[in-house]
Amino acid sequence: MQQNSPSEFTRVKRAPTRGAYDIATIHGILDAGTVCHIGHIVDGRPVVIPTFYWRHEDRVYWHGSTASRMIKTILAGGKVCLTVTLLDAWVLARTSFHHSANYRSVLCFGRPVLVDDPEEKLAAMRGFVERLFPGRWDTLRPPNAQEIKATAILSMPLIEASAKIRTGGPIDDKEDMDWPVWAGLLPLRTVADPPIADAGLAVGHAPPATPT
Amino acid sequence: MQQNSPSEFTRVKRAPTRGAYDIATIHGILDAGTVCHIGHIVDGRPVVIPTFYWRHEDRVYWHGSTASRMIKTILAGGKVCLTVTLLDAWVLARTSFHHSANYRSVLCFGRPVLVDDPEEKLAAMRGFVERLFPGRWDTLRPPNAQEIKATAILSMPLIEASAKIRTGGPIDDKEDMDWPVWAGLLPLRTVADPPIADAGLAVGHAPPATPT
Repeated sequence: MQQNSPSEFTRVKRAPTRGAYDIATIHGILDAGTVCHIGHIVDGRPVVIPTFYWRHEDRVYWHGSTASRMIKTILAGGKVCLTVTLLDAWVLARTSFHHSANYRSVLCFGRPVLVDDPEEKLAAMRGFVERLFPGRWDTLRPPNAQEIKATAILSMPLIEASAKIRTGGPIDDKEDMDWPVWAGLLPLRTVADPPIADAGLAVGHAPPATPT
Repeated sequence: MQQNSPSEFTRVKRAPTRGAYDIATIHGILDAGTVCHIGHIVDGRPVVIPTFYWRHEDRVYWHGSTASRMIKTILAGGKVCLTVTLLDAWVLARTSFHHSANYRSVLCFGRPVLVDDPEEKLAAMRGFVERLFPGRWDTLRPPNAQEIKATAILSMPLIEASAKIRTGGPIDDKEDMDWPVWAGLLPLRTVADPPIADAGLAVGHAPPATPT
């Protein structure tokens, strides 16, 4: 297992106690999330696009249309920052200044590469579906050549990556502890509502569990 | 109410039916979210930082420490892309290619400015707290001069902004409709778990509702 050390760029500057750099922590956060935000530069301006990602070993993957501007820009040599954020709780303190949030986030920097070996590409597509819906890939109509061609898959090594985590309750100033207001955590969680079957679906097919 | 028209930069390129440009739609998505991802450029590289934001009229606001790199970089004239993403459902189709997600997202481009008028700054801080926890501001120990000084508030007009929305079920190819697999929507929702009072909190204080 690779142990990555923070570069000057990924070192958490402001709240060093919140910085966590071991790769197991980074993997854990990445595996708990589904949506990432990918920052890249287009005509000198930052652009942040939400998309899904998945991790396999020490790399992070995402996909897009081969016709998308993001994919084209990145493959033209663009640098990328891929950020994953999980909001766990609101942290309510006795003064506005100490209000905060509990969260887990990962920033990963790099230059992605195209997964263009057909076998590797198919394996990556399978990995994306299976990560979200274990067992589903083999039940689907397999992708055809046109669909595989229209899908671009990018991957980036988790070399320059860092995690930032906040846990625990509010940290108020001592002299505020008796201020007459509620303080504590308001935890958040993503849940699944009941599945909605597609119109025309034959009976007898069961939905998979919802990844949250 | 300002009607913004898509520039070449904000026009949704790939799936034009998913692009929604009216300002009411953009406001609605911004008001439904709490976390944004802010892309900016540091030493020629994109950096994407999660933070909270709030909207007031036709501007979006966020805050940070006056000592933070993000705030300093942006105030040195940096361009920003602020992205908000709300994931509503997984969309499961009969083939991997047509799997998708229902979501609402906003991208907003601009050059933020510092809110430095003391009265406007205090009003913005109040707006941030009240947006999340209505009525809470007046129950808190008021911010002192040092706390106000240590807080930087940025704002950006919603001029170059666009929304992207997907709704509805999977769109499979006709010839796949009888493929023997479940297809449909797996809706997602963020919920609040029971509040956790801070250690040492006197009884008699009630928690506010959790913003989800």
